[in-house]
Amino acid sequence: MKLLIAYDGSAFAGWQSQLHRNTIQDALEHAIFRISGKRVRLHGAGRTDAGVHALGQCAHLDLPDRRLPAKRWTKALNGTLPPTIRVLRSAYVPDDFHARYSAKAKTYRYRIRAAQILPPLELNRAWHVTAPLDTSLLNSAAQRFFGRHDFAAFAANRGKKECTVRTIRSVQVRGRSSNITIEVTGDGFLYKMVRLMVGAMVQVAIGKMPCAQIDKDLRLGRAHGARFSAPAEGLYLIKVWY
Amino acid sequence: MKLLIAYDGSAFAGWQSQLHRNTIQDALEHAIFRISGKRVRLHGAGRTDAGVHALGQCAHLDLPDRRLPAKRWTKALNGTLPPTIRVLRSAYVPDDFHARYSAKAKTYRYRIRAAQILPPLELNRAWHVTAPLDTSLLNSAAQRFFGRHDFAAFAANRGKKECTVRTIRSVQVRGRSSNITIEVTGDGFLYKMVRLMVGAMVQVAIGKMPCAQIDKDLRLGRAHGARFSAPAEGLYLIKVWY
Repeated sequence: MKLLIAYDGSAFAGWQSQLHRNTIQDALEHAIFRISGKRVRLHGAGRTDAGVHALGQCAHLDLPDRRLPAKRWTKALNGTLPPTIRVLRSAYVPDDFHARYSAKAKTYRYRIRAAQILPPLELNRAWHVTAPLDTSLLNSAAQRFFGRHDFAAFAANRGKKECTVRTIRSVQVRGRSSNITIEVTGDGFLYKMVRLMVGAMVQVAIGKMPCAQIDKDLRLGRAHGARFSAPAEGLYLIKVWY
Repeated sequence: MKLLIAYDGSAFAGWQSQLHRNTIQDALEHAIFRISGKRVRLHGAGRTDAGVHALGQCAHLDLPDRRLPAKRWTKALNGTLPPTIRVLRSAYVPDDFHARYSAKAKTYRYRIRAAQILPPLELNRAWHVTAPLDTSLLNSAAQRFFGRHDFAAFAANRGKKECTVRTIRSVQVRGRSSNITIEVTGDGFLYKMVRLMVGAMVQVAIGKMPCAQIDKDLRLGRAHGARFSAPAEGLYLIKVWY
């Protein structure tokens, strides 16, 4: 079964199951257990970090039977889950569907509030940037990421040897004054890649880094000098493309 | 001094000071005490209920001296207050200014999410209405309130004898599908008036009450039958006009 999921990441220690169980995956697996009496493993399309939100996370699970109509699963899960996690849609899918490996692309949104004072209702929902920010520089910096590159310089090293080449299909910067949105679609993302990309864009936009630095880091496939990660609370997983 | 204030009402028991001190007024008076060492009383333009938010609440206080520049007050207060309350602006005003009595009008916004599933990031920020809602009926119902009426039928009785005639200067319904916003400007509002107005509008929009009922209640100056109050979490105090 495939689930389309939205959540407010503020209250959770991220997507991926952990011993303390305060994660979105744990909450969903627990809800499935309460409904079906079965312990099943859920596979998410992307492992969002603590504080990261989702409007359209996808996950799949293998159910021993398909007796319950898919729509009933949506209702039953939402009746069991905390209101900070909602299942937007449930659907039975072929057995070879895998939320992560079948994904063709993902879209992330990053929100920035560029202002002296962060509106209280934006708390935990946007990056509060107080330094004066040049949005046309932000946009030029963003466009450098377009296309196929080695993103090693924009990934947190998890000690794994993995291919670090990814393709960014679109980068859009919207909003001119205090409320800025960056939307990135790519065929795949390395660990912390969006946050490190946005961190670099903002470094350029506040005049602390030349735009050419991004080109260089992409060309050489490694960072030199300090790297800047945008905080988790501005990041939203918007859509997984299949 | 006049303060322009924004807050996320979810975590507070409303504006007005209470013994347990978990109110916005208490938090602000405590912050003023920590900065100035003086216990001063703050006067708000409107006493928002528990769960009600504000983007532009106003308040005034009488300071024994004006040594500190007004801008420094904004910084100092925000450095002391929890991030769920922000002072957007501070300004010295003439002694006869009163946040409540000098106010000429107020604008409130009410947000409705009309959908089967409430998006997690809308929790505590909108009224979740699951019944099918006719937005053109909602709009006709809203327009009945325009003008000068006796709003006794749209006020929670607090056992006070007070004049219940108020003038609504504008009512705007925006949004057609699931995300609906109602904005009301009036010269003054009785206790729970906006919530009882929106409650009646939604009763009409879901087909549970004829539109003519609103006219009747306004004409007679008393409600007959049950009254419906919209929940606090969808309400925002947007602006106080002086």
